[in-house]
Amino acid sequence: MKIDVDFEIFGILAFYSAILLAKILVMPVLVAKQRINKKVFANPEDKAFVPGGEVSIKHTDQDVERYRRAHLNDLENILPFIFLATLFCFTNPGIEFARCLFQLFTIARIGHTIFYCAPRARKAWLRFASCGVGWVINAYMAFSVFMYNF
Amino acid sequence: MKIDVDFEIFGILAFYSAILLAKILVMPVLVAKQRINKKVFANPEDKAFVPGGEVSIKHTDQDVERYRRAHLNDLENILPFIFLATLFCFTNPGIEFARCLFQLFTIARIGHTIFYCAPRARKAWLRFASCGVGWVINAYMAFSVFMYNF
Amino acid sequence: MKIDVDFEIFGILAFYSAILLAKILVMPVLVAKQRINKKVFANPEDKAFVPGGEVSIKHTDQDVERYRRAHLNDLENILPFIFLATLFCFTNPGIEFARCLFQLFTIARIGHTIFYCAPRARKAWLRFASCGVGWVINAYMAFSVFMYNF
Repeated sequence: MKIDVDFEIFGILAFYSAILLAKILVMPVLVAKQRINKKVFANPEDKAFVPGGEVSIKHTDQDVERYRRAHLNDLENILPFIFLATLFCFTNPGIEFARCLFQLFTIARIGHTIFYCAPRARKAWLRFASCGVGWVINAYMAFSVFMYNF
Repeated sequence: MKIDVDFEIFGILAFYSAILLAKILVMPVLVAKQRINKKVFANPEDKAFVPGGEVSIKHTDQDVERYRRAHLNDLENILPFIFLATLFCFTNPGIEFARCLFQLFTIARIGHTIFYCAPRARKAWLRFASCGVGWVINAYMAFSVFMYNF
Repeated sequence: MKIDVDFEIFGILAFYSAILLAKILVMPVLVAKQRINKKVFANPEDKAFVPGGEVSIKHTDQDVERYRRAHLNDLENILPFIFLATLFCFTNPGIEFARCLFQLFTIARIGHTIFYCAPRARKAWLRFASCGVGWVINAYMAFSVFMYNF
């Protein structure tokens, strides 16, 4: 048995995976910025991060938790995407179709974070729609991989 | 140096990975169903999801949080599994043995969600056992990969 | 198009990935140990785990939540690392340089858990530095993969 794969498609996947993973890396920076702005930390020893050390230790600040949820939502969707997209590449999809899926997913995930976190763009339906686009792409690829390897 | 891998095993892994990743995709749907049933949401703007907009914004609802923990537990176990199983395929395991491990892991994870979430099947020991089966398979594969590449 | 990859580098990556994934597997054991020590559980049915069943059902115990955050931080950093390091191997890096990055990341992540959880080593700046080392390595690899596939 041999695999017959066009390697160009993996270069495209690597490109969008790098963008999506870099996007994940940005999230803890935004969380940290919120924590420092609002002086809200998770651990007693974190008071070392703020001169004077006047901080709150709590886990219920709405702004900090909003960014944390956006981060977690990225992990929930982007990490499965990279697995699914890699497996999808082995199902001999059309290259332009695959590129289109990867692009759309990337745009949808960036949109999700904007509609979740940006103060003037917090629209629940737009956030739901952008998350849903990513979800449908993941579900489609999972179904394709399942059928191809059935 | 060359790799000597039977590609059939990757087809088997792709099949079970697709099932497990599809299983992860189901979890946010179940969380959303709980949120809508109980009208408990995480963000103030989410009141747009319920006609009339009479919702609670809280993070302590036991049913919603139960499904969220089941989702997180999947991420904690299934994503490492796919990495470990992929690396495990390169250690020249027997195909039938590997298929057996992947099958058992998949069944254990589905069992975990049932014993965690289904109202009539919430048995702590069964949940612990099914999570433990997955954990032992992951640990065994991690050890095998470590020894093979030592 | 063909790929030209030295497979030795994947053996090195497999070795460090196995260590890092085994490290993730240790975290729920530490969380469970805290839960049993302090008799603090997340679900009402979990009282079956403690003889006598005198447990607290809460989500705010500082020690339990500390270990849970350390676990989540591992998932946030180690899972993207394995994706990024795999893609990085395809950018024809020097083998010794790549090995050095993987080693440093592994040490940094183990350090992070020690500085987060060990009662006598809870230093916020050391935890931040070890997390930061891992973050910079991930960011560097994401940038390299992005530029290589641009």
